[in-house]
Amino acid sequence: MSKSGSISASVIKRLPRYYRFLGELKKQGVERISSRELSERMKLTASQIRQDLNCFGGFGQQGYGYHVDSLHNEIGKILGVDRNFETILIGAGNLGKAIALHINFETRGCHLTGIFDVNPKLTGQRVGDIAIMHTDEIEKFCHEHSPVVAVLCIPKANTQEIADKLVSLGVKAFWNFSHYDLSIDYEGIIVENVHLGDSLLTLTYGANIVISENEDN
Amino acid sequence: MSKSGSISASVIKRLPRYYRFLGELKKQGVERISSRELSERMKLTASQIRQDLNCFGGFGQQGYGYHVDSLHNEIGKILGVDRNFETILIGAGNLGKAIALHINFETRGCHLTGIFDVNPKLTGQRVGDIAIMHTDEIEKFCHEHSPVVAVLCIPKANTQEIADKLVSLGVKAFWNFSHYDLSIDYEGIIVENVHLGDSLLTLTYGANIVISENEDN
Repeated sequence: MSKSGSISASVIKRLPRYYRFLGELKKQGVERISSRELSERMKLTASQIRQDLNCFGGFGQQGYGYHVDSLHNEIGKILGVDRNFETILIGAGNLGKAIALHINFETRGCHLTGIFDVNPKLTGQRVGDIAIMHTDEIEKFCHEHSPVVAVLCIPKANTQEIADKLVSLGVKAFWNFSHYDLSIDYEGIIVENVHLGDSLLTLTYGANIVISENEDN
Repeated sequence: MSKSGSISASVIKRLPRYYRFLGELKKQGVERISSRELSERMKLTASQIRQDLNCFGGFGQQGYGYHVDSLHNEIGKILGVDRNFETILIGAGNLGKAIALHINFETRGCHLTGIFDVNPKLTGQRVGDIAIMHTDEIEKFCHEHSPVVAVLCIPKANTQEIADKLVSLGVKAFWNFSHYDLSIDYEGIIVENVHLGDSLLTLTYGANIVISENEDN
């Protein structure tokens, strides 16, 4: 991991997108692609792509381009798609259920095995293959299964408390959908905050600019 | 809008977060806050905050700090939270329903009035207050309601086609949850791609680094 450990944060942010595009090309049966072609599809400059992909070993060859399959595999390895991290989801409301059903965890290095909710009425209800457990069961489950990743789809007020508990139970990575910026004061703990509300506001800002310009004309 | 039109993209990306934090402070009854305090809560440097907030007029006063309520209102105005943009959602699967029910559109400048799905079995089913319509009704609905914002929760294969159609019907902004980077070749059209899968992969990458370091030790 020493090589990937030195990759800059901005390159890392683009890696999942490279992985996704290369996966598409693979599906379409494309064997090789030049940085120019890839740049057109991904709306990045060719030199940006060459620079990014050079960060983890020069996979491209002059006049030959990138070998789609091996580049896809190599990026997948760096991302950890083969890790099969045991994953739990807390909060089986509308959003939690949708995330559990909509996201393919397996192709992204995670294996969802436990879903928890504080509402006893939900206990035993199935979300896909998994029966919802009461949050009281989390501790026991963690001792038995040692999950690495936790998906938080719970109200803001409970997020920090639950996260603290899960850290003490060995969870290393949080995919956080609550409207709360999880504090990342824990050493060696990874947090990916997903603020859908912030994303919508960014869109509203853009729409507001566009519409205001139209109104001015 | 001339002032906000010149704000850099990186500042704009942080605006919804400022808006969220200031909203919290307001709820907690905080009237004033210094850039230092705000920086501690938001995990940004105080000078970053001063620089950001100076972009849209020096709201802070030396030795007094920021007036939470007026700064919140001002940022809200810039974001367009009072615009009440007519909004439609296409694709009433698990994710579409969860977005419709989970996101407070109203506080973010949008007003969700139509939900559409291609599956005739869903027609008439209610998601909150709204009865699902068949996608065949989109054109008529757009002529009558002129929606500005469209939320796309549809499979990748249909996304570009539906987006093209909606652009021709006057939609200006897309909140795109499909696993497809909507092409933004349309002039004056705003796209916010939400790739939940990419977000999970970023988390997996981080977890992989942390776990590998632990394994090495």
